[in-house]
Formats: sequence, C-alpha cells, structure tokens
Amino acid sequence: MFDVDAIRAEFPIMSRQINGKPLVYLDSGASAQKPQVVIDTITRAYAEDYANVHRGLHTLSTISTENYESVRGKLARFLNAASEDSIVMNTGTTEGINMIAYAWAMPRFEPGDEMILSVMEHHANIVPWHFLRERQGAVIKWIEPAADGSLDPQAVIDAMGPKTRLVAMTHMSNVLGTVVDVKAICRAARERGIASLIDGSQAAVHMPVDVSDIGCDFYAVTGHKLYGPSGSGGIYVHPDRMAEMRPFMGGGDMIREVRRDGIDYNDAPMKFEAGTPGIVQQIGLGAALDWMTNLGLDAIAAHEADLRDYTQSRLAGLNWVNVQGTAPGKGAIFSFTLDGAAHPHDISTVLDKRGIAVRAGQHCCGPLMDHLGVAATTRASFAVYNTRADVDALVDGLELCHDLFA
Amino acid sequence: MFDVDAIRAEFPIMSRQINGKPLVYLDSGASAQKPQVVIDTITRAYAEDYANVHRGLHTLSTISTENYESVRGKLARFLNAASEDSIVMNTGTTEGINMIAYAWAMPRFEPGDEMILSVMEHHANIVPWHFLRERQGAVIKWIEPAADGSLDPQAVIDAMGPKTRLVAMTHMSNVLGTVVDVKAICRAARERGIASLIDGSQAAVHMPVDVSDIGCDFYAVTGHKLYGPSGSGGIYVHPDRMAEMRPFMGGGDMIREVRRDGIDYNDAPMKFEAGTPGIVQQIGLGAALDWMTNLGLDAIAAHEADLRDYTQSRLAGLNWVNVQGTAPGKGAIFSFTLDGAAHPHDISTVLDKRGIAVRAGQHCCGPLMDHLGVAATTRASFAVYNTRADVDALVDGLELCHDLFA
Repeated sequence: MFDVDAIRAEFPIMSRQINGKPLVYLDSGASAQKPQVVIDTITRAYAEDYANVHRGLHTLSTISTENYESVRGKLARFLNAASEDSIVMNTGTTEGINMIAYAWAMPRFEPGDEMILSVMEHHANIVPWHFLRERQGAVIKWIEPAADGSLDPQAVIDAMGPKTRLVAMTHMSNVLGTVVDVKAICRAARERGIASLIDGSQAAVHMPVDVSDIGCDFYAVTGHKLYGPSGSGGIYVHPDRMAEMRPFMGGGDMIREVRRDGIDYNDAPMKFEAGTPGIVQQIGLGAALDWMTNLGLDAIAAHEADLRDYTQSRLAGLNWVNVQGTAPGKGAIFSFTLDGAAHPHDISTVLDKRGIAVRAGQHCCGPLMDHLGVAATTRASFAVYNTRADVDALVDGLELCHDLFA
Repeated sequence: MFDVDAIRAEFPIMSRQINGKPLVYLDSGASAQKPQVVIDTITRAYAEDYANVHRGLHTLSTISTENYESVRGKLARFLNAASEDSIVMNTGTTEGINMIAYAWAMPRFEPGDEMILSVMEHHANIVPWHFLRERQGAVIKWIEPAADGSLDPQAVIDAMGPKTRLVAMTHMSNVLGTVVDVKAICRAARERGIASLIDGSQAAVHMPVDVSDIGCDFYAVTGHKLYGPSGSGGIYVHPDRMAEMRPFMGGGDMIREVRRDGIDYNDAPMKFEAGTPGIVQQIGLGAALDWMTNLGLDAIAAHEADLRDYTQSRLAGLNWVNVQGTAPGKGAIFSFTLDGAAHPHDISTVLDKRGIAVRAGQHCCGPLMDHLGVAATTRASFAVYNTRADVDALVDGLELCHDLFA
C-alpha cells in the first residue's frame, strides 16, 4: 500500500515552512529531496565508519570500501545491468556523458562523422558534443519532437546514415516529460553498428529502467535526482564499448602500476574511476536506491501517473495556461507559460511567497526553448512525496498569478 | 590554547573501538576524519535547506546557492587568493589537475614540449601528464629528491629549458613529508614564461598556504583531506591562465546560451564548473575550512610539528625501523620499512588488531617507490586530532611487529 503521508514523514524538509507556508516542493526535476535514511546513512558513514577506500587494509578502510563498492551492485540491479563491472561510479550524468565524449568518442570521431541528438536534450547531453563539433569537426543532426512533445523513433532511425557514429538521446525530457522509445532507437542503432547513449537523469527517477532490455551502450543516471546525495551517480557501459574506451581522468585507483615512462591501467570499471571517489555520497546513493526499491518502482510510477493525470485535468481547466508537452505516457513534469505578460521568473516569485517551489527559465534546454518559440517556461516537476493537494496549491497559486499579471 | 582533548571530542569517530581497542587513526594522509560541525552542516543542508543551486529563484534554491557559493570565498581566503573568481570548485585534486591537463595543457602542448615533475609526485599529478605524453608527444623530465627526501629547487630550475611549458610539483610529499620550496620554483618558472602547478593536497592540511606569495599558476586542494566531506575541493587558477583555458566538462552552469549550432560560455570560474555541483559536500567543506581557521592554521602546524619531532625521536630509538624522508621542516608523515621479512601489509594488519590504522603500499607513488628501491612502505600520517599517546601506541605496535617478524 502506497502511503504518501508516511512517505512525506520520512523527508525532514517536508515539515519546513517557506515564507510562513508549508513547503510545496515542485522542483524535483532539478533535484530531489532526501529521506531520513539517506541522511542517517551519510551521518553514520562519517561518524562511525569513515576512511579512504580501496588502498587500505585497516578495519575502517575495509568497512568503507565494502560499503562503497556495494553500491556498484545496487546500481547494476537498479538498472538491470548484467554485471556490476558495467557500472562506472561518478558524480552524475554530466560527468558520465563527458566521460563518454572524452574516453570513447574523442579518439574515434573523424571530421564529418555524425551524431544524432534530439532537440529536447539537456545541455549536459549537448555541450560535450558541441566540443566534439568545435574541436574535431563532428556533425550534429537534430531531431525535433512533434507538436505534442512526442518523439517519433522512426525519425531518429531515418537520420542514421553511413557516417553516423552515435545517437545520444534523453529517456525522459526534463521539460516536456516526454518518454522516448529508446528501445526502438537503440535496437536500430545496434543493427547499424552505431553507439547509443541514453540520458536517464529523469527517467530512472520515475520509471523502472532495464538497460538489458533497452539494449543501449551507455545509460547515465544522477544520484541527487534519485533521492540520493549531491555529487553521486553512475553510468552503465556495455562491455564492448567499455573495451573501446581510453581512460578519461588520471590518478589513483585507475592504474595498476605507474612508472616514469609508462602506465599499466587497472581493469574496467576501475580504469575509469580516478582518485578518491565520492565515498560517502555514493554510500548515501546506495541507501536511496534501496529505499526506492523497497517502496517499489512500479508503485512510485503509478503514484506519479496519478499526479500527472490530476495535474493535466486541473490545468486543462485554466485556458490561459499553455502547457508544453502532452505526449501520451509522459512523466509528471509540466512546463508552461501563462497568457499575458507574466514572466516565468515573476510566476516563480509569486508562487514562492506561498511556499511553492517551482523552477523558471530554460531548464538547461536552450535548443528546445528555441524550438518551442519561448524564452523561458515555469516548470512544476513531481516526485514520490507530492500529493494532489500540492497540485491544488499550484493551481491556486497560478490563479493568483493570472489575477496579478493578466 | 590548543587543547587536543577538546579537539578529539569534536570527532565522533575518535570514540570508536577497533578490534576492542580505542581507534588510533594514523591514516589522515589518505583521508581525514570529520568534526561534528561538518557532519551537522551536511545534515542541516539536506534536512532544512536543500535544493539545486544557481538556476532557481525559490527560497530553498536561493539559500542553497548562497551557502554553496560562500565556499568559493572561503577557499579564496584559505589560500589567500586575490579574488574568489580565481577558485574553481570541484571534487578534489585529481579532478583539478585533470582539468588543467585537459583545459590548459592539451590544446597547447606540441610534440616535444617538456614538463617537469618530481619523482615524489602522487599518481594524480603523474597520470594526467602521461596522457599528454602518450597522446600528443609531451616529454616528462623527472627531478629526484636527495637521500634525505629534500628536493633542491635549483635542480628544478636547472631543468627548465626553452621547450619547458609546465612545472608540476607537490608542495608536501604524501610519502616523505618533504616540504618543497615551491615559491622559488614558481618564481623561476614565471620569469621564464613557464606555467606552474602545485599539488597542495597534503600541504594545505598541515600549513598555512598563500598562493599570492607562492606565485603559482595553479594550486589544487582536496576537501576530504581538509576535514571536509568526500567529493569536495577546489583549485586556484591565476587569472592569466584562466583566460587561456578552454572548457573541460560541458553541461549546465558553464554556459550562457546553447543553440543548435553553437555555445556562448559563462564567465570564469563558472565556465569550468559543469552540471549540478557537489552542493552539500562543498557546503560541508566550507564548515571544515571555518573550523580549521578558528582553530588557527599556525596552531595546527605547531601541534603537528611537535608530533613530528616526538615521532622522529621515538622511531630513532628503533634501529630496525628505516624511515624514508628526514628533510628539515618535513610534515608529520612517516613512511618506513622494518628490517627483516615483515611486509608492510603484515605490519598494517598487526597494527589494526591493536586499533591502529596505518596505510601500507605504494601510496599512489610508483616512481618514488622505484626511486627508493622499495616495493611498498608502511605509512603513519598525523593530523590535528593525534597525540603523543598515538605515537607511543604506534611504537608499541611496531615493537610487537619486530618481535613477530624479525
């Protein structure tokens, strides 16, 4: 039984007041709040069990290493990777995608080689590829979503040509909520020998993810969106692609031996993890994944589907609200503008006075904003701790904005 | 008045038992323990004030951004940088040095261009340069320490030639404790138009650091060694060099505008900080720096000098202990081997049974181990919470090892 009140009670910040009002947190698309078990795990890791990992033989180092390394398996199971050796632990999707750009793409892209992006991509899945364009002549081909925000996988497949080396695509748009049929895209890419990278930064939070079923080469997730600590995360890398990657960052842990004239690298995945890692935040991410799994990923998805449907029906009643993205099966992420002069920043400020936290701006999606023909939107993004009452509070707040600015 | 008992009481882990014995933690060179104020700061950041930074206008995001951004100024003051705009925040020295290698060195090193390293460097300050050697023909020139572990700055200066582009050097050896006269080296480098990078991962923990006085171009520090959280840190970059750097990782925050056909980058230092940063660990690092500053960096250094002298005198009484590194003014870091067959791993294991945490191995210093002609050492590294009683416990433990293995 999914008990949202009990879930909310696990999040200490949910009892906070903002401007004298109870917090209505609708900014989980930017970062999720943390349940007490994650905070307690962090505290315990520092107060009782802390030491550096991997290179120590003493008790604290052994405990810390076991706690840290156990998260690799948790990430593998969370994403249904065949082996935990396919998981590179890192600070999140931005680092994950940059690693692929530097370690896999950079040594093999020739001038004129192509890659395919959707216009919905987050800057984290655009800027590393712009580097490749600027620095070595890669060509980026852009796929546009339909008017409802849906993305036709066939349009992506049709764009695959003899010079295409990589398809990099979001699994769930952080602006529109659109869920992309990445399985169809990855299957077609594999048939053509094209690599596929999926940005799972949003999707992994809101739906069960199965990288084995999707058949992707790379799947990146972000810990702080998964109810885990800031600076945590990981990326799934298919073994064939892992074998093709050269090291990204150099330092401790990723080597076996360093001499004045050469290096022997460690085996993957350690080969791609340099220096002391984010020990405690990664251990905290492990607690967050356990917490989500215990709650049930399907149950979370069902709860959020209800919030999505309820939000859609409430916003449909406000004919001065223009929602961007109504693709079937979308996630509970709503970006919108209001008729009249109200700038999203002003809307955000008015809502904040009522304790409602939303995001306003470009949401790290410049090309999508250009495509939509808007300078910015207001975004309300939902998570496991949100309720229909939060939706009602949002609608009340928007009605106030409409009265103030229209 | 420096009250080590009161300081120890601030570290919850110091009341922990290991194998039934009170913890004697002599592995701070690998990572330092955390005072309660750092743990409490982390807890508060998650439980009361958490949201993503920079892109939000709502109250929590504003608080989180202010708390996070304040650490930039704390790092600048801690290192005596002229401006907080010279601080790039990151996950620690490994990321910092890799950023310099990718963002500054990679686009400007031609085949045959030289850089100077000491043989004492940590792998974090070797492997990124090996990449430059392997991938684009850079030449690494190695400077050896003297028999006592000291490094003659003139030897470094003499190695500077017309093709030298960079000197990269530790400020304090993590194996020998040697403090390098980096000011003399950086001055000579600047006169010759050679860039200078100082690895302050150890030094900044144990002595006041003044990057303006040193005159370096880059100075990297690691938060988890500075009593701060894992995954925190920063690097000082001289404004002239900052202007020469191209972006390292791409993503949110480091851009001003992203279009399908181009990017406008953000101003430095944000230009070099991609994606959601390590928000809470960086806030925790700020608390750690405040804590160290309140204690007094000179007072910390004086306490550790006393521990160094006492350790030297106690170990001098054991003629079967071979200490590596006796340079004048060295830090309280002791690497040693024992006469007879005792492997450092065995020594570490025996000491651990008595609650004493030391490190055994290469300490991420392969070339130095080769230079010293040892496969591995045992290392006892001291910090603010250590006492003469810890030294006595170590000596007692080593005597037991001598009895067992000699």
